[in-house]
This record gives sequence, C-alpha cells and structure tokens, in this order.
Amino acid sequence: MKKFKYSFYEIIQKLQNFWYKKKCTIMQPLDISIGAGTFHHHTFFNILKREPIHIAYVQPSRRPSDGRYTKNPNRLQHYYQFQVIIKPIPKNVQKLFLSSLKNIGIDIYNNDIRFLEDNWENPTIGASGLGWEIWLNGVEITQITYFQQMGGINNIQPAIEITYGLERIAMHIQNINNIYNIIWNKKSEKKIQYSDIFLLHEKENSLYNFEHSNIIFLLKLFKMHIEEAKRLINLSKSLSIPAYEQMLYSIHYFNLLDCKKTLSTTERTNYILCIRKIIKKIAEKYININVKE
Amino acid sequence: MKKFKYSFYEIIQKLQNFWYKKKCTIMQPLDISIGAGTFHHHTFFNILKREPIHIAYVQPSRRPSDGRYTKNPNRLQHYYQFQVIIKPIPKNVQKLFLSSLKNIGIDIYNNDIRFLEDNWENPTIGASGLGWEIWLNGVEITQITYFQQMGGINNIQPAIEITYGLERIAMHIQNINNIYNIIWNKKSEKKIQYSDIFLLHEKENSLYNFEHSNIIFLLKLFKMHIEEAKRLINLSKSLSIPAYEQMLYSIHYFNLLDCKKTLSTTERTNYILCIRKIIKKIAEKYININVKE
Repeated sequence: MKKFKYSFYEIIQKLQNFWYKKKCTIMQPLDISIGAGTFHHHTFFNILKREPIHIAYVQPSRRPSDGRYTKNPNRLQHYYQFQVIIKPIPKNVQKLFLSSLKNIGIDIYNNDIRFLEDNWENPTIGASGLGWEIWLNGVEITQITYFQQMGGINNIQPAIEITYGLERIAMHIQNINNIYNIIWNKKSEKKIQYSDIFLLHEKENSLYNFEHSNIIFLLKLFKMHIEEAKRLINLSKSLSIPAYEQMLYSIHYFNLLDCKKTLSTTERTNYILCIRKIIKKIAEKYININVKE
Repeated sequence: MKKFKYSFYEIIQKLQNFWYKKKCTIMQPLDISIGAGTFHHHTFFNILKREPIHIAYVQPSRRPSDGRYTKNPNRLQHYYQFQVIIKPIPKNVQKLFLSSLKNIGIDIYNNDIRFLEDNWENPTIGASGLGWEIWLNGVEITQITYFQQMGGINNIQPAIEITYGLERIAMHIQNINNIYNIIWNKKSEKKIQYSDIFLLHEKENSLYNFEHSNIIFLLKLFKMHIEEAKRLINLSKSLSIPAYEQMLYSIHYFNLLDCKKTLSTTERTNYILCIRKIIKKIAEKYININVKE
C-alpha cells in the first residue's frame, strides 16, 4: 500500500488553487443547509445572468435519507461537494477536469476513468442538463453537467457545472475503504480523521432525521417558508435573494419529510411541483429586474 | 499608494496555511446562518470537551441589524470571520497572532497595533472570557478571548479563541476605504470585487431584514425552534447536535426580530434568558453523555 499524498484539507486547497489559476473566483459555502452545491445562490442566480462566470467553492451537502447511523463506510447524511461553474463553456472540459485530477495526485493513466453520458435533473429548482458521470475504478466521483435549464427557465446561456464528491476522491487518494478513516489533517500530533470530526454528528443526525424528527413540525415549517417566499415575490420590490433563501429552507424541510417516508406519492409530486413553480417565479422576477437584454 | 499583495481569497488561504502549519485542523463553515464563528458546533462542543483542540475555519456571519443597504462603506449584514480555537492555550498567543499578521503581509512595526483589554461575552450561548480587542491603526480587526465559560458552564478547560475580521484586514492590506472595493480575485480577466459578489445580497437582505420581514412569522419560527430543541433534550437519546441546531435557528430568528426593533426591553431580556437556559441544558446533557471525568 503506497503512502498517501494529500490530506482532505490539502485536496480542497489543491482543487481551489487549480481552479483559481484557471481564473475562477473561490467563494465560500452558503450558510444555509442545502442538498447540493447547485442550490447555492452563486450557482442559481449566476446561471440566470448573461455575464461570463468563473467560480468554485466547497459546499456542505445534507441529504437526510443518506444517513446510516455511521454503520455504512460509504454513505453520509452530510458531506462535501466541490463545485465549479464556468460560462462561456471552455472547449476542453474533459481535459481540464482530468488535469485537475492529476493536480491532486490521481494517476489518470493507471486508473480506470470513465465518462458515462448522463442527463442530470433536479426537479425542485428546475435545473437540468446533459453531461457525464465520471467513474474512477467503478466509483462515481464527479458529475459534469452542461446546464440547459435553471429555475425552469429554458433560454439560459450555456454553462458548465463540475461537481466533485470530495470524500470519494479522498478515499481513492488515501487508498482507504471507509469514509470515517479519511485523514483530514496529517500535520497535527495525532492524525485527525473524518470520524474525529463527524462521527457524533452522523450518529445523532441519523437518529433525528429517521426517528426523532416531528412530521407536524416539519410540515408546518415547509409550508410557512413556502408562504413567506410567495409573499416576498408578490411584493413590488426586488427581493429575489430573500425569497430564494425561504425556498432553500422549505426544500430542506421537504428533504427531512421525505426521509421519514410519510409523504404519499401524490403529496410528494405535488410538493415538488409547488416548489418548482415558486422557484420559477423567483427566477423570472430576478431576470426581469436584473438581467438586461 | 503601494500595490496590494493579496486578494481576499489569498488572505484566507494564507491564514489557513499559517494555522495548518501550527497543527490546526482547517474545517469548513457551518451551513446554518449564525452571528459569529463562536456559534459553530466545532467551537461550542469542542470547548466543552476535555481533549486538546486545534481548529480554524472561515465562518459567514449574519448580523441583520448591521445591514446598511450598501450605503455604508464599513458595515455589512453578512460578512466573514476567520476563527481559531486552541486548547491547551499556547503561552505565546500575542506573538503567534502577530506572526499570523506578518504572514499576510501586514507590517507590524510600521503600523499602530494595540491590544485593548476586553471582557467578551455572548449572552445567548452563555460564552464569556477575558482577552483583547486588537486595533490596527484605530480599526478593530480581531478579538482574542480566553474562554472561561461556554454554554453557561463554568468549569471548562481553558481555551483560546482568535476571531479575525477578514474584510477589515483585507481593506488594510489592499489600502482601500470601502468594503465593496475589496478585490476578491485578482487572477480573473476583470478583477472581481466584493461588490460583484455581494452588492445585490446586501441591498435585498437589508430591505428584507428592516422592512419586509414579517414579525408574526419570525416570532412563530423563533418559538417553534425553541420548543423543538426543548423536546429533543427531554428525550432520553443523545441528540445534542440536532437540539443545538434548533437553537441556532431560533437565535437567527431572534436576531431578525431584534433588527425590527419591535421587542420591548423586557421581552428581549426574557428571550435571551430563555435561549441561554436551553443552551445550558444542551451543554450539560452533552457533557454528561460525551465527556468522561
């Protein structure tokens, strides 16, 4: 077994520096619980604009249904994505992506790297596009998407999204098969592992999400934030960002409700349609006010 | 006027690398809206433990009352703190801090740097300590605190907190007097300024926070999250983290209510006492379950 090169922190630093050199502005994560980097303001609203955009950031991603009480070595309810958004789209996306892997010490010649065509879609924020899942020795490590739609709006300027799964990449680089053994910090006296930081979080949040959350409470919050977003977009003032943040809260509560498996198929579909409709209104109002023809 | 050395992103990178070399684990920001880095789990629960701790992270901080509709060159309702927590306390804290300033290109000999004794306190999470405000040419840029209390618990192991105000430090380094002109990214074709990223956010969130938020809605959310936290700590299971997160939500709604200036002095005091009491229960339960004597 070869000695690993980079800690989790160093992988993040290397990716940030790689994309910084490619002219990307490195942003900070959003301080609202979201399910994927795509939901961050920086992606949502920038995709709707006409201006060029080059950004990258880490985003904590919460997917309550993926919690496994720490018992699964590959699955977490809270993990990190590294997100890159570029517009106009560079011609050499696959090549660029492969150099970013080389940059974090992945041998792209002696590992099996496959680009599988994949039509990606997120129904709640009305985002979709064509692209690839990227598999490294049989494990999906990244998703690349050419956005065709955002906020349910079709005629957007094409943009590319690269979403790295940081934990899976770290597991490959560090040659380990349990996510909790990822070395986050190798400089400290005692090496700091993922489990030192997140074991209790994963245990308690799995317990809360699956067993001890309160459906009436979650449903009420879900509906209250929806109503608040509606109220804000109906005001004459430009309040797209506060309205969008209300929707991020309701999507988070929707995910928590979904995790309890109490929504019927019809309810689930209706809630998603309801979210999508309001998100579209936010996108339309944002474009009307902020995007010049 | 001398040419500036580091962009906002580079200042963050330099600080992270400086503290990483001092054995700190560099964490990611919390994905819940909080008023200061101190509220992050990583600070709150680690301070309660007996184990040594060396961590650092950036934290987006939301202070609704500080919004100024982009009209004030020094004040924002959303900004970034860089937070360092170390335990046991190193002997040379002031010296360490000064080297961190040198590391980001601040000339510590030809600028007026003053350590003003300051007893810091945050009533909601029951945190307090002795320390210094650090002033650079008359502007407060950092707070250093020797924690004596956290979660209202007195007999904690002493720990040191260093909280850098990143924007103010960047303004000094870049020799500018308007926060919106901070250069975030100097590598891009068109230099990316703070205003390119946050002008609309500041405008719309000031508008929402001061004028268009809904007091009944905020008060209801404040109370619902308080009740949910209470319910969770009364369960026999260990749910300190989900309970604490509920309290972070209610503190955020308290801050939004406070910003509307509708709470009477008595209500305000009572709400703070109520938050503090529940936070203390969470700290006590966490210690009982997780901290070995």
